Amino acid sequence: MKRFIFLVVLLICAIQFVSAQTQPYKVVFDLTSRDTVNQQTVIRWVNEVTKANANAQVEVVMFGQGLNLAIKDRSVVADEVTRLAQNKNVAFRVCAVAMKNQNVDKNQLLPGVETVPDGIYEIISKQGEGWGYIKVAH
Amino acid sequence: MKRFIFLVVLLICAIQFVSAQTQPYKVVFDLTSRDTVNQQTVIRWVNEVTKANANAQVEVVMFGQGLNLAIKDRSVVADEVTRLAQNKNVAFRVCAVAMKNQNVDKNQLLPGVETVPDGIYEIISKQGEGWGYIKVAH
Amino acid sequence: MKRFIFLVVLLICAIQFVSAQTQPYKVVFDLTSRDTVNQQTVIRWVNEVTKANANAQVEVVMFGQGLNLAIKDRSVVADEVTRLAQNKNVAFRVCAVAMKNQNVDKNQLLPGVETVPDGIYEIISKQGEGWGYIKVAH
Repeated sequence: MKRFIFLVVLLICAIQFVSAQTQPYKVVFDLTSRDTVNQQTVIRWVNEVTKANANAQVEVVMFGQGLNLAIKDRSVVADEVTRLAQNKNVAFRVCAVAMKNQNVDKNQLLPGVETVPDGIYEIISKQGEGWGYIKVAH
Repeated sequence: MKRFIFLVVLLICAIQFVSAQTQPYKVVFDLTSRDTVNQQTVIRWVNEVTKANANAQVEVVMFGQGLNLAIKDRSVVADEVTRLAQNKNVAFRVCAVAMKNQNVDKNQLLPGVETVPDGIYEIISKQGEGWGYIKVAH
Repeated sequence: MKRFIFLVVLLICAIQFVSAQTQPYKVVFDLTSRDTVNQQTVIRWVNEVTKANANAQVEVVMFGQGLNLAIKDRSVVADEVTRLAQNKNVAFRVCAVAMKNQNVDKNQLLPGVETVPDGIYEIISKQGEGWGYIKVAH
């Protein structure tokens, strides 16, 4: 019985220890705004995070009115999105439901931009995997 | 001792396995905006999520300026809120502190809308239980 | 073997029990807006949360356009920030990257306001430690 209690205590300590590890730099940005200031802001954040943290993983999920960031001729940061999308630690993902609602076709997306079936589920899945979450708004 | 180490390793694996399960579709939407586009947006999201995922659980928490969604004569989506509130997997919850601050009485709320003592605590409790979180803003 | 299975089941139950405990009141507010309504709103929330919950821990992280809340001569709630910053359960933290980008010096900050090297990492670290997250927007 003593050994049993010892085991339980030790394992609870182990769990605490594991969850107290330094938070890895994984963050998902939620963009549902067509505001060009928000477009520029999220790109600045992606740049700053990836430059300062070589192993940071960053994902920008666009749904609602946020699609313009990733659409040719509508994005005010098209060159930056195209460049950053080549970074293997950065992903730009557009919600396919929002694309359908707004009649946006895949060939309108900037190079390297991906689609996901459901932007909301993409975000909450990342949250469930321990990624940080930041809503882009101002 | 060998058996002990084996047990510890096995249990850590079990924990990893449990936490790596597919994320259930549980999401709390945080509405603090009186903007009618935001009202329409969150209702569209609730509709899309519940139609595409039979077991999804969705909650809309309103506080700050977000109460109008749930108030008769102020909501631009009153019929939709009333209809969706009948879905057992959908909840609309208004912060009682915000209601008091803004002199809103329970009888002004649309049918099926609930109140919670503290909208912020309602949201962070859901987050603590593993629900996804999406701020409604554009 | 029976005892082994019993142990595993018991420990999984223990883990469930631990994670099902009442959510402590710990919340980080994310402010990236210079809107004065948002400044007043987040202060009202900090006041309400701390008055109603003696042990609540509250942190306001400012980055992007959110710095004005904490800057002398720009904050519309300067007295409140100064007063609340004296509460050991309340922290106001400004992102040093944003300060540098916007040429804001430490001596422009209201008394008691702290800086953090990276506001985004500050927020996702808190999320990783189980703090609730609320984006301030309307």
